[in-house]
Amino acid sequence: MEKMLKKSALVVSAHSADFVWRAGGAIALHAARGYDVHVVCLSYGERGESARLWRKGNMTETIVKQHRQEEAEAAAKILGASIEFFDLGDYPLRADKETLFRLADVFRKVQPHFVLTHSVNDPYNYDHPLAANLAQEARIIAQAEGYRPGETIIGAPPVYCFEPHQPEQCHWKPDVLLDITSVWEQKYAAIQCMAGQEHLWEYYTRVALQRGVQAKRNVGIASPKVISHGEGYQSLFPRVTEDLS
Amino acid sequence: MEKMLKKSALVVSAHSADFVWRAGGAIALHAARGYDVHVVCLSYGERGESARLWRKGNMTETIVKQHRQEEAEAAAKILGASIEFFDLGDYPLRADKETLFRLADVFRKVQPHFVLTHSVNDPYNYDHPLAANLAQEARIIAQAEGYRPGETIIGAPPVYCFEPHQPEQCHWKPDVLLDITSVWEQKYAAIQCMAGQEHLWEYYTRVALQRGVQAKRNVGIASPKVISHGEGYQSLFPRVTEDLS
Amino acid sequence: MEKMLKKSALVVSAHSADFVWRAGGAIALHAARGYDVHVVCLSYGERGESARLWRKGNMTETIVKQHRQEEAEAAAKILGASIEFFDLGDYPLRADKETLFRLADVFRKVQPHFVLTHSVNDPYNYDHPLAANLAQEARIIAQAEGYRPGETIIGAPPVYCFEPHQPEQCHWKPDVLLDITSVWEQKYAAIQCMAGQEHLWEYYTRVALQRGVQAKRNVGIASPKVISHGEGYQSLFPRVTEDLS
Amino acid sequence: MEKMLKKSALVVSAHSADFVWRAGGAIALHAARGYDVHVVCLSYGERGESARLWRKGNMTETIVKQHRQEEAEAAAKILGASIEFFDLGDYPLRADKETLFRLADVFRKVQPHFVLTHSVNDPYNYDHPLAANLAQEARIIAQAEGYRPGETIIGAPPVYCFEPHQPEQCHWKPDVLLDITSVWEQKYAAIQCMAGQEHLWEYYTRVALQRGVQAKRNVGIASPKVISHGEGYQSLFPRVTEDLS
Amino acid sequence: MEKMLKKSALVVSAHSADFVWRAGGAIALHAARGYDVHVVCLSYGERGESARLWRKGNMTETIVKQHRQEEAEAAAKILGASIEFFDLGDYPLRADKETLFRLADVFRKVQPHFVLTHSVNDPYNYDHPLAANLAQEARIIAQAEGYRPGETIIGAPPVYCFEPHQPEQCHWKPDVLLDITSVWEQKYAAIQCMAGQEHLWEYYTRVALQRGVQAKRNVGIASPKVISHGEGYQSLFPRVTEDLS
Amino acid sequence: MEKMLKKSALVVSAHSADFVWRAGGAIALHAARGYDVHVVCLSYGERGESARLWRKGNMTETIVKQHRQEEAEAAAKILGASIEFFDLGDYPLRADKETLFRLADVFRKVQPHFVLTHSVNDPYNYDHPLAANLAQEARIIAQAEGYRPGETIIGAPPVYCFEPHQPEQCHWKPDVLLDITSVWEQKYAAIQCMAGQEHLWEYYTRVALQRGVQAKRNVGIASPKVISHGEGYQSLFPRVTEDLS
Repeated sequence: MEKMLKKSALVVSAHSADFVWRAGGAIALHAARGYDVHVVCLSYGERGESARLWRKGNMTETIVKQHRQEEAEAAAKILGASIEFFDLGDYPLRADKETLFRLADVFRKVQPHFVLTHSVNDPYNYDHPLAANLAQEARIIAQAEGYRPGETIIGAPPVYCFEPHQPEQCHWKPDVLLDITSVWEQKYAAIQCMAGQEHLWEYYTRVALQRGVQAKRNVGIASPKVISHGEGYQSLFPRVTEDLS
Repeated sequence: MEKMLKKSALVVSAHSADFVWRAGGAIALHAARGYDVHVVCLSYGERGESARLWRKGNMTETIVKQHRQEEAEAAAKILGASIEFFDLGDYPLRADKETLFRLADVFRKVQPHFVLTHSVNDPYNYDHPLAANLAQEARIIAQAEGYRPGETIIGAPPVYCFEPHQPEQCHWKPDVLLDITSVWEQKYAAIQCMAGQEHLWEYYTRVALQRGVQAKRNVGIASPKVISHGEGYQSLFPRVTEDLS
Repeated sequence: MEKMLKKSALVVSAHSADFVWRAGGAIALHAARGYDVHVVCLSYGERGESARLWRKGNMTETIVKQHRQEEAEAAAKILGASIEFFDLGDYPLRADKETLFRLADVFRKVQPHFVLTHSVNDPYNYDHPLAANLAQEARIIAQAEGYRPGETIIGAPPVYCFEPHQPEQCHWKPDVLLDITSVWEQKYAAIQCMAGQEHLWEYYTRVALQRGVQAKRNVGIASPKVISHGEGYQSLFPRVTEDLS
Repeated sequence: MEKMLKKSALVVSAHSADFVWRAGGAIALHAARGYDVHVVCLSYGERGESARLWRKGNMTETIVKQHRQEEAEAAAKILGASIEFFDLGDYPLRADKETLFRLADVFRKVQPHFVLTHSVNDPYNYDHPLAANLAQEARIIAQAEGYRPGETIIGAPPVYCFEPHQPEQCHWKPDVLLDITSVWEQKYAAIQCMAGQEHLWEYYTRVALQRGVQAKRNVGIASPKVISHGEGYQSLFPRVTEDLS
Repeated sequence: MEKMLKKSALVVSAHSADFVWRAGGAIALHAARGYDVHVVCLSYGERGESARLWRKGNMTETIVKQHRQEEAEAAAKILGASIEFFDLGDYPLRADKETLFRLADVFRKVQPHFVLTHSVNDPYNYDHPLAANLAQEARIIAQAEGYRPGETIIGAPPVYCFEPHQPEQCHWKPDVLLDITSVWEQKYAAIQCMAGQEHLWEYYTRVALQRGVQAKRNVGIASPKVISHGEGYQSLFPRVTEDLS
Repeated sequence: MEKMLKKSALVVSAHSADFVWRAGGAIALHAARGYDVHVVCLSYGERGESARLWRKGNMTETIVKQHRQEEAEAAAKILGASIEFFDLGDYPLRADKETLFRLADVFRKVQPHFVLTHSVNDPYNYDHPLAANLAQEARIIAQAEGYRPGETIIGAPPVYCFEPHQPEQCHWKPDVLLDITSVWEQKYAAIQCMAGQEHLWEYYTRVALQRGVQAKRNVGIASPKVISHGEGYQSLFPRVTEDLS
């Protein structure tokens, strides 16, 4: 019953840093509001997103993964989320049926009120769409009465795709602009945990500022609301509501 | 200042019955919650959507328009909205600059918190996209400081396209499913004012039931929420929010 | 040679009830006209589409599958089709190379004049697109001279995607509206075999009525043709014809 | 009543040669089958599609238009169609309300069983989409009981967009491949009437051959049907049928 | 003949500042390389894009337009372009046939090797797509032998759509990333001429930095090429080339 | 170091003849200019694209593959490319992780300046999109520092999709028209090596002529440039440039 009392969210991240750049604001915002936010990192991004570490020399996959895990745990802590690692390997990320069930079981356990994951297209990164599709299929399985009959099934939590690196090339179009002004400092602190990808710190700061300006535009410049930083999301399902304002 | 105290909405309807079939639920729902909902009918639909009246014989455009106005006023009253008629003619609907300014002035006066209008594509009905584009351009003009300088400009109210008659053919995809269960009786009463289009009563009842089932699906069948009737809407702008659940 | 004398059709259904809701009219219509219509159910939908059965308690997958098979056989009989079950499992449905060849062999045996299957997108149900892609790839293999050389290859039967549960969300757009007025009673009788999904009976009755109204619109309200019920289909290939009327 | 006895078709051509390159096969095919096929040329293409004539020197718009009219009449005769010229001017083609009604009146008079016109997108030629939209809106008006009440309204004839010069750039995708093998000689004779655009003769011969090969592919290479020449069309409305083969 | 010797480009800008934010880099880059770059400002943006000026009070449209003209001329000078103003008015921008011919005449005079203009969709700004369509249709007319026969027609210069304010909402997808690193200082100096829109200075600086990072990504991080600033463009026509590297 | 001195290109072909019909011009053109062009044939197309051979009778897969290999090698020689065969089998083509790494290793070895492969959609041929996706994912892996650390990673070579058999049905839209006039004779000689698919010789000759006419159109009919033959390509990534003409 406690499950019902506390709200929760699930973030499915292909590599161990994606959830920070792309969804750090959403995580901090909802954690601050009392949500249990849980992050699943499908891989450490040890091959494809750790160039700086490899260039240091004397590296092994084990060491790289350990570095990446520590960075991700530190970031999750700052954002207020719990985190786990599936360690599936990256470049390429692959998921078999057992992985699908493992993720479906996380859905069942977390009972998320919403889900964050990657965009379904990304010509620069095939691991990202794979993660998005895995998250979607796991959600569907966790909804099925016939999967582990007797367990509590999940509802129909909305799924939001976070922003890819080159949004237009991924046919990603945000229909939600999340105001993360109040948690920006926290998100930037989490970003700074990603020592191996420092070149992205300013890139994603600018992304946040641009989405902030756009959010402000979409509430109207006449509005008294101050919005400085934002995150964009694309919904995969229609929103059910009784309020259009 | 009173303007700020009361919420409002604007509905731009190509013909005098469109707002009933397509947005009657949204109007009743928000009127019940205290919104001033204002409907602009650009035409009476006297040529294109009054077949039954014409078939009676002994008809003139003046009489048809009068019939249609009475029906629309009765429906608006039931739904709790104010209504006005631009009488631009239909089949084809055409709008010049003066009409655009006239509608921009309505935006300025109403200061809507949201806007409802037609889909931007409809191969079966060229008046509908024209109305949608007119509404959009009027909104843009009403936002401009340089239009009638000194007047209070409007904010950036979200625009929702209501459901066309054959949704897939219009490339219309709902991203909002509005739960209109609580006002369905009212909507159906308004629908019944449309004596000249009785063949559509059951059609739009079924639309409401289908959208209701879909809304229920999208909150999850496990949810205790009862939803029997719905209306679908497609947003034209991203939603700004601090809450993803 | 008899193969050439009798027309035939093939229906590839992800779960054992899909062919009823989505293509029951097409099956009955063509069966009545003398076609051999053959249905392949890739799974029983035992996990994902048998919620009511599971809720009864004391259930096992074997019992659920048996129930579902009986229902599907009864429905196929009413519609006039033969039916077989691949029993691949659902949620998730998966198909290896051997399954692909098994289905290609069915294509070779049936030599279908047209093929019915699912839409290629469905964010609510990943089994459906998988079935559609499997059907398409099997069709391609069955066309190849080099697959089981010496066997009679198939022609290029048109493939029609039947209507998903939430059509717009699946980017499904019907380009064919099939008039099923003459077989509606039969389709509804088949629908009633699906005891475990009674909540869908009225939903798909309304779908049929809406598509009927739309079909009537697309032949013209002035036409004397009476159409009360329809089914929508999306073609995957261009139609070859000598007649545009 | 005679109206009902004879089938008819309407072709709306932006410039006076478009109907030949793009729809000559469809016209000849249906004329041969007894249809009254009527062509409306909205302009002569005197500015934009008569380069060779202008280069001769000593030209005036009047002479160019006369040349073009003679060519078009000769081609229509070969194809078996009647033809009329609206002489609206080209580059740019523009149509006011009166032109719209004029064309709607042609629809009423012809009572077409199908309509052929341009694609709705063409970045190389803005007159073409304008013609397509004009044809569509005129069709809608001719369907309305309230337009010239008392006249016989038209049904809902299918509208097919013929092939633009650079199909992919126009987002044009054929869903109908018309087998014009039996009338190809006739179409090529009509093409040869277009003395001013000889550079296009071979281009459109190749188009016909490519569409022929594709048509053959889409009936299946195993089929005994011989198809050497084709024309591609994109439907704007769903097809209503009782037969999927 | 000199026309042939010197390369040229044409920029069609809806309002008098658009060419600076959106194409300042391209202009400076090509001007530096010896192109004659000519800018046409269809309006001054006096109503819709001069909010700061209007808020000063004691403003008239005449004064606003004068301010805007001075700013635009100063920016054009810095970028190395010539500039002219059509003064058509904004919010709404409208263009009749005479304006179309006026712009076609500019095309004829400039004989551009490429054309820059707005995106063809923008739900936030209806003047922008109108400008893009006007530019495209003028280009088509300027290509026609029959328009002002005897004059030198233009070739088929590529048309590039520059970046709108909220790119994804405009369905704008860049297929060209222009490296403007070498002229960024110049562009930023031009941006600073726009005293009335200071809130956009940093916004478009960030746009340039993001497009710079993306350009670098698309040549490969291993490449020695330094790219810090970029501009994105969407082509409307295929590129003709003999070199794919 | 030599690697850096010589330019190179990689072609990933699903079946052993695809590179000839679809990219023969590009290969010959760049080989003539000194590029090392390397072709990988994933399969021989022994099942799906060797109908004529199978019809001869007395065939085995081994013999068919040998024939196909000889034809492909002869064609590659004429075009000036090196070639290798992965022999993965066709109809269906399937690729596991090892194949992916094998292709990534080819990318590393070739260090291509551009990549040619299939379109990402093709409802007629599921092997083609599989090849395109395999090529794309291999390219991504070859870019990763963490894949075989210490090896030289590749840059970000542009990827071009060559023309499928029925372009519009594959949602393929060329944004590059390659002028292959100078190497057409060579391409046609290579085409003639494909003895088993003689029915395609004229088809792809016409494709080349049509793309040639379109290329000419897109540089402008007034241009002195002679273009008789072309090949169309669709880019998957934005082009980075400093020159828009």
